Amino acid sequence: MSSIWFKKHFLKSGSSTNPGNAESLGRGAEQQLPAASLYRRPKFLRGVCSGERLPGRRPIYCPPRDRPLQWGTGYAEVINAEKSKFNEDQATCCQISVRRREIGMEEEQDWLILCSNQYLIGYYWALFDGHGGPDAAIIASNYLHYCIKQKLEEVVEGITEAQPPMHLSGCCICPSDSQFVEEKQIQQEDVVIGALENAFQECDEVIGQEMEATNQSGGCTALAALYLQGKLYVANAGDSRAILVQKQSVVPLSSEFTPETERQRIQQLAFLCPKLLADEFTRFEFPRRLKGNDIGQKILYRDYSMAGWGYKTVEKADLKYPLIHGHGKQTRLLGTLAVSRGLGDHQLKVIDTDIEVKPFLSCIPQVKVFDFASRNIKEDDVLVLATDGLWDILSNEEVAQIVRSFLKENRTDPYRFSELARCLVHTARGKKNGHQWILDDNSPASYDDISAFLIPLYNRDADC
Amino acid sequence: MSSIWFKKHFLKSGSSTNPGNAESLGRGAEQQLPAASLYRRPKFLRGVCSGERLPGRRPIYCPPRDRPLQWGTGYAEVINAEKSKFNEDQATCCQISVRRREIGMEEEQDWLILCSNQYLIGYYWALFDGHGGPDAAIIASNYLHYCIKQKLEEVVEGITEAQPPMHLSGCCICPSDSQFVEEKQIQQEDVVIGALENAFQECDEVIGQEMEATNQSGGCTALAALYLQGKLYVANAGDSRAILVQKQSVVPLSSEFTPETERQRIQQLAFLCPKLLADEFTRFEFPRRLKGNDIGQKILYRDYSMAGWGYKTVEKADLKYPLIHGHGKQTRLLGTLAVSRGLGDHQLKVIDTDIEVKPFLSCIPQVKVFDFASRNIKEDDVLVLATDGLWDILSNEEVAQIVRSFLKENRTDPYRFSELARCLVHTARGKKNGHQWILDDNSPASYDDISAFLIPLYNRDADC
Repeated sequence: MSSIWFKKHFLKSGSSTNPGNAESLGRGAEQQLPAASLYRRPKFLRGVCSGERLPGRRPIYCPPRDRPLQWGTGYAEVINAEKSKFNEDQATCCQISVRRREIGMEEEQDWLILCSNQYLIGYYWALFDGHGGPDAAIIASNYLHYCIKQKLEEVVEGITEAQPPMHLSGCCICPSDSQFVEEKQIQQEDVVIGALENAFQECDEVIGQEMEATNQSGGCTALAALYLQGKLYVANAGDSRAILVQKQSVVPLSSEFTPETERQRIQQLAFLCPKLLADEFTRFEFPRRLKGNDIGQKILYRDYSMAGWGYKTVEKADLKYPLIHGHGKQTRLLGTLAVSRGLGDHQLKVIDTDIEVKPFLSCIPQVKVFDFASRNIKEDDVLVLATDGLWDILSNEEVAQIVRSFLKENRTDPYRFSELARCLVHTARGKKNGHQWILDDNSPASYDDISAFLIPLYNRDADC
Repeated sequence: MSSIWFKKHFLKSGSSTNPGNAESLGRGAEQQLPAASLYRRPKFLRGVCSGERLPGRRPIYCPPRDRPLQWGTGYAEVINAEKSKFNEDQATCCQISVRRREIGMEEEQDWLILCSNQYLIGYYWALFDGHGGPDAAIIASNYLHYCIKQKLEEVVEGITEAQPPMHLSGCCICPSDSQFVEEKQIQQEDVVIGALENAFQECDEVIGQEMEATNQSGGCTALAALYLQGKLYVANAGDSRAILVQKQSVVPLSSEFTPETERQRIQQLAFLCPKLLADEFTRFEFPRRLKGNDIGQKILYRDYSMAGWGYKTVEKADLKYPLIHGHGKQTRLLGTLAVSRGLGDHQLKVIDTDIEVKPFLSCIPQVKVFDFASRNIKEDDVLVLATDGLWDILSNEEVAQIVRSFLKENRTDPYRFSELARCLVHTARGKKNGHQWILDDNSPASYDDISAFLIPLYNRDADC
């Protein structure tokens, strides 16, 4: 999709700001194209937070009590401890209205109403954690839901019929087509997953074009949750995380994608396309950077095909900087990036070289599906989406404990999920002690941007 | 490793046949190089089964009662219903003696005894399911345990010290080396896993050289279980399967690798290296083979990056034969192979073309580790290894039910695990009804070769 086409489409059927509620999309309201270069905080924080940094302070912002988010969703955020000029996290919370129509017809033609309702309504929450500047996260927070809306509308018959049809037009070339679809076990949810995958890819292309046109740089992670037709889809590209907290259990609804978790994919690409390393990097992993006097020794190593470790006789070429280096949060791809999936970074090069990072990145999310019909959702069951600033400090189990005890003690406040979000973000941010941010036990708190959605799930399958 | 080197090494420190027991390896006994072209059944069946096909009959063979396998292991096999000339399954069951020594010393030098025992004793079971002829499976059944022995000996300090050393020689270049190893959380078992991965790769190279030298063709899957130092390692490349049957649960200890399960890896390779398809195949997956009148239609498809399904406007190029085609057991890679991992197939080309299949295959196993110390192994807990002939007919749960009820009713016979193996193989083979093989409920039985090891695990951590 070209950037121009996208803008045209965007201007035509874009979002409206729905005062007193979250953004509402796709009903043809007027819409101004957001200027990517205009830094801002999430729209639902307007009047609360300008985005201006308060020197030395890190206040926690929540949506105002008089403008609740959809589903009573809670949200809180805090800026980093001056590691970057801006809070590089961004957030979006809105409905996505998917028009039921026949594909292949021109925009100008009348819609063919296939079912009694003209729209499928989806509910969408997303977090974006920017790096190398705030711009990619801002564009993604403005565009990704449009890409999702568009991709869902393109395949809408595939997600409204009991079984996705082989042909989108409904024509039948081969009488046993539905049998082939059944044999492959292709279901509605597979078509939604495909639409989400393609939407991330399209949003990445748009970001690349916008950033090139405006001479901006940077990238962002993307974690998006979409509730559609009784199922929750969690799409993740990066190191944010989603978990479902229930009374007795914690269900992870995403995996993190970092140079460490995607080592074998990245090393294999370097094996298949060695030119991408321009003789400056080695694709082998060693426990530490090698030195001259390691040459000739047999040292622990891993190559792309290995889940285990072997020993390799060190050659001079092994002294090059490793494709993936460091451990834990310090792990870097090409000495540059801490994440291996996300949007943007099209222009990113290894410092002082012509080596591009983008070929090693993936913009495709992993999508996990949570079916409300097959799970027993109880009161106070809550979906937690948060950027790595939270998860670096709090484990899944610690978050679950805070969630459970907070909700038990705060039963009636309709704003309680934002207070809970504030409580979680506050816990991870800690308190200021001189120039440091520390937890109650005096260990280091998070210096990063932190953003969290707390989404109550009870009775949603009945409501929506 | 060259074939010549291997033969030399093999002849020097190869296996001896230990009458009255399984093969015993590595103690310098005399050994004749097996001729790959000499078809045979597993050594432990000698005197029981010549390998000759009995027309129209499919007797089940077990080891003789007076030559029990290690650990009281049960084994049974049956030939296919004349789909190929030979039983293309092969099996090995033996000890692997890993010499503790300092690496880097020549074979001729004295061994440096590092610990009180000169050898680490491992126990090994493996199944190989051949295709395109029996030769690759025969070579693998003769060689893989030597490759494993050799790879383990090469890194023996890494698997005997509490923490694998950074340098195999024990020299210390950097004082904090052990800290780097600890930070990466590299453990003994990771070095065993690496050795198994490298052993499969080496065995594959040997097979390639042997097959080329003797003008043979074909390949095989490989499923190997190794018990070493209180842990069970299950390495799998192909569509055989290992499960642990316990009283209350079934623990899968392998995953299958087929064109269906490895679709994304295979499609991505075709995307990165399109020349491998020589313009004859399309890398896209469709629910069925496309036809001329599908052109211009939007049809369900998947590309390498997609776990879900999308719709694609069909072009002429999409009418090419798909890289991966069919569904379930009928799925084929390049219209040729039903498995995507295994050993051999170096010369395999798509019929009537110059398109090579080997680049799309992986010889690297997935290795799963089962730690006896952290699991409560009870009496009658049993490890089941079997080729796909069994699993095509019986589910994990059905096998577990047969295992539990058989063992409950047969408490005292020391040969009971072979009788159990016979019972399982018999169930999957079914009975002959005219020209058909059917189960008790008249549904089709297995027409494939079937082989199964039944390995009792109780008290093994204490014994070995």
